Amino acid sequence: MNAVAADFGPAPSLWKRRHLLDLESLSAPELLCVLDTAARFKQATNGCRSKLPVLTGKTTCNLFFENSTRTRTSFSLAARRLGADTVEFAASSSSLSKGETFIDTAKNIQAMNVDALVIRHVSPGTPHILSNNLQCSVINAGDGAHEHPTQGLLDIMTIREHRGSLEGLTVALVGDIAHSRTARSNIWGLKRLGAHVIVCGPATLVSRAWESFGVEVAYSLDEILPRCDVLNLLRVQFERQTTRPFPSVREYALLYAMNRERMARAKPNILIMAPGPINRGVEITPDVADGPQSVILDQVTNGLAVRMAVLWLVTSQGE
Amino acid sequence: MNAVAADFGPAPSLWKRRHLLDLESLSAPELLCVLDTAARFKQATNGCRSKLPVLTGKTTCNLFFENSTRTRTSFSLAARRLGADTVEFAASSSSLSKGETFIDTAKNIQAMNVDALVIRHVSPGTPHILSNNLQCSVINAGDGAHEHPTQGLLDIMTIREHRGSLEGLTVALVGDIAHSRTARSNIWGLKRLGAHVIVCGPATLVSRAWESFGVEVAYSLDEILPRCDVLNLLRVQFERQTTRPFPSVREYALLYAMNRERMARAKPNILIMAPGPINRGVEITPDVADGPQSVILDQVTNGLAVRMAVLWLVTSQGE
Amino acid sequence: MNAVAADFGPAPSLWKRRHLLDLESLSAPELLCVLDTAARFKQATNGCRSKLPVLTGKTTCNLFFENSTRTRTSFSLAARRLGADTVEFAASSSSLSKGETFIDTAKNIQAMNVDALVIRHVSPGTPHILSNNLQCSVINAGDGAHEHPTQGLLDIMTIREHRGSLEGLTVALVGDIAHSRTARSNIWGLKRLGAHVIVCGPATLVSRAWESFGVEVAYSLDEILPRCDVLNLLRVQFERQTTRPFPSVREYALLYAMNRERMARAKPNILIMAPGPINRGVEITPDVADGPQSVILDQVTNGLAVRMAVLWLVTSQGE
Repeated sequence: MNAVAADFGPAPSLWKRRHLLDLESLSAPELLCVLDTAARFKQATNGCRSKLPVLTGKTTCNLFFENSTRTRTSFSLAARRLGADTVEFAASSSSLSKGETFIDTAKNIQAMNVDALVIRHVSPGTPHILSNNLQCSVINAGDGAHEHPTQGLLDIMTIREHRGSLEGLTVALVGDIAHSRTARSNIWGLKRLGAHVIVCGPATLVSRAWESFGVEVAYSLDEILPRCDVLNLLRVQFERQTTRPFPSVREYALLYAMNRERMARAKPNILIMAPGPINRGVEITPDVADGPQSVILDQVTNGLAVRMAVLWLVTSQGE
Repeated sequence: MNAVAADFGPAPSLWKRRHLLDLESLSAPELLCVLDTAARFKQATNGCRSKLPVLTGKTTCNLFFENSTRTRTSFSLAARRLGADTVEFAASSSSLSKGETFIDTAKNIQAMNVDALVIRHVSPGTPHILSNNLQCSVINAGDGAHEHPTQGLLDIMTIREHRGSLEGLTVALVGDIAHSRTARSNIWGLKRLGAHVIVCGPATLVSRAWESFGVEVAYSLDEILPRCDVLNLLRVQFERQTTRPFPSVREYALLYAMNRERMARAKPNILIMAPGPINRGVEITPDVADGPQSVILDQVTNGLAVRMAVLWLVTSQGE
Repeated sequence: MNAVAADFGPAPSLWKRRHLLDLESLSAPELLCVLDTAARFKQATNGCRSKLPVLTGKTTCNLFFENSTRTRTSFSLAARRLGADTVEFAASSSSLSKGETFIDTAKNIQAMNVDALVIRHVSPGTPHILSNNLQCSVINAGDGAHEHPTQGLLDIMTIREHRGSLEGLTVALVGDIAHSRTARSNIWGLKRLGAHVIVCGPATLVSRAWESFGVEVAYSLDEILPRCDVLNLLRVQFERQTTRPFPSVREYALLYAMNRERMARAKPNILIMAPGPINRGVEITPDVADGPQSVILDQVTNGLAVRMAVLWLVTSQGE
């Protein structure tokens, strides 16, 4: 460990996990440990701008079976800002097309002495399966509609940065809840830290059954709007839908888009978030996306800090 | 800034631009500033062979919307030889296919604290639009048929390296002028530094209107050949042409290919250049491409030096 | 050369080659030199886990004209663990599609001051052609069905690691010999170091003509099994076969798959190897692939060490 890393100190002893598979299983102290570490990284690296080589000599691998640019790039940059090497393992050109099993591919990557495997896969549970078969760290970068824990963490970090605490805040997740792994990770993390969560959208995309997770279910954005401290506007994932869950984009925007008129009826200090990429004019109008309450680009910057924190924490176990 | 960078000294105070969008707007002192800096980098890094980490901790991003290997690789290597990290943002797998606007994609990249965005796009003016919307540096790596400023700079650097100065030289650009951003960048830079420029090719690819830019227009290579100090043989871009601008490749080669017979009628110290990739037997014959007057591979090496210089100059502003 | 590199010492003076094109032309001392160097790298880097920056400031380029993930990733990681930069030159997006010749592409890469070019190509002899036209080092990462020398070396390194020496061992290569460059590289290297080599498979994939290379030809795995110290189970390359060389996969597995029943009739200390990616249930059953005699994942780790050794040896010539 070099001089800079020594200055940053050892990884917090509270954190014991070798993998980050979901937020559902994390305790409040564990969540706060990641958030505090991310905040320290952000400060120590001048807003994620400079390097802090605490992972020099380590290697991370991005194994993405779904298209991704921003999450993959964010993980790569986070790894490199910590001094690690990263390799990309593109699914299309990989040996899987030659009949190799998924676990064999992962074991081969591990045999090249990779320290952390960042995986995105269309099948829920894939990261769990890998974590049971590998010695290296496994980080879930999205598994189907199950979870996307670093997205949940960066959303929560952004709220906490602006409000100090999650305790007692009302956070609404608006839109395509049914297909959203981001919604699930947000729900588990937000509730564990004391926020009240509302899921809101058309009935075809938001089931009453979500009440069993301890969240409020709403179908009218206008009704819940005055109570909300944070709106997280999920994107309408046209590319994931096989049926048409609402009559038209115009109808969706009429009922659920955050626009100037709705802003006038919201709390003045409401935070407007979106996991992106945003569809301007669908879930959000340009004046709101670029307005003073929007923290959408803060989320991107905090994504780097959160991923630095997670990479450091999980690879510091068992050393 | 580390010891090696300190030895190289601060960026020249003459340079004030945060972006490199074109050569048209550069003054002669600015052009010479880039060329001098590139020459210093080439010397200090033993012909671009070794590293000079003046950009340690900085990050560049290649955002290429057109296929490119050599320009992209050249920018990546230049960045890494200066100690920067680079990320590739492939257009095909990016969020643009999910409905995100072009500027939102770029702002997201910037939010990951990228210091310089190197952009290639089929639409002229794209880098200008980005530069008006971003705080990070924007470098044009080719925008449609408009400009390709680092290609112009590396061509000019190569001539200057062999002749000391551009003043009074006659430089002919031969071939597909109509589709060539390289031609436009060469014209602006060469003229600003005192060269006489001729554009030469079939009338379908070279318009009389070019005279309004202060260049000589010629249709016969054989007529202008004895006067030329430099020939820059642009490639016939078969992949860009939607109509057939000349009867046959054989006819084109007969009139415009640089071959042994034409070399015999040229100045003995003529410089033969080509931006590549070359079509052997079309715009140039193998004996000329590999002959003693060819500086084609010097251009590639100088491309690295020019890109190091540009990356350093634009990212050193406002620190 | 920095302090760490100095500790590792200079490259062995016995090695004089600037390229690694095949194993056929290597002498036994040369083979042992690579293997010893690889073993030293493996030890010095804690099983290829940490870095040993003996190639800082150097650049390697992967020029792959056939799909590959594991070989390409292995070469990239090897280069980076030695402190070198690596660039990927994807064939599909390269200038070859613009009509550039193969050698011009390679010369352009070299002009960017690349120190080692790692090439995979469907045509046998391609690396030889490049080595005759370039000043930089050329490393063959597989040329058609000719050779794949680093695969041969990593296989041999793995056997030597477990048995101390190759002298007098009986090694059977089983399966698709006709299409296998791995088989050819293994044969040359194994025989040179004193092993007895058997090639075994269906008559459609194993010709009697192989006897002229000094190897034993067998068609029944069961007959040779009791004599074997090592089995290297080549994969059935369904993707390379244009005709069907055996009646069914089930028939192939019945005759040539290594399974529990055959293990019972093999020497107790037999080594089970496979170049991967493996087809579970075709050439090997899961219990054997994951069993105590399998060294398949050791091969992957040793691949890193071998590639570090080769990159260092070939780029250390003529300094």
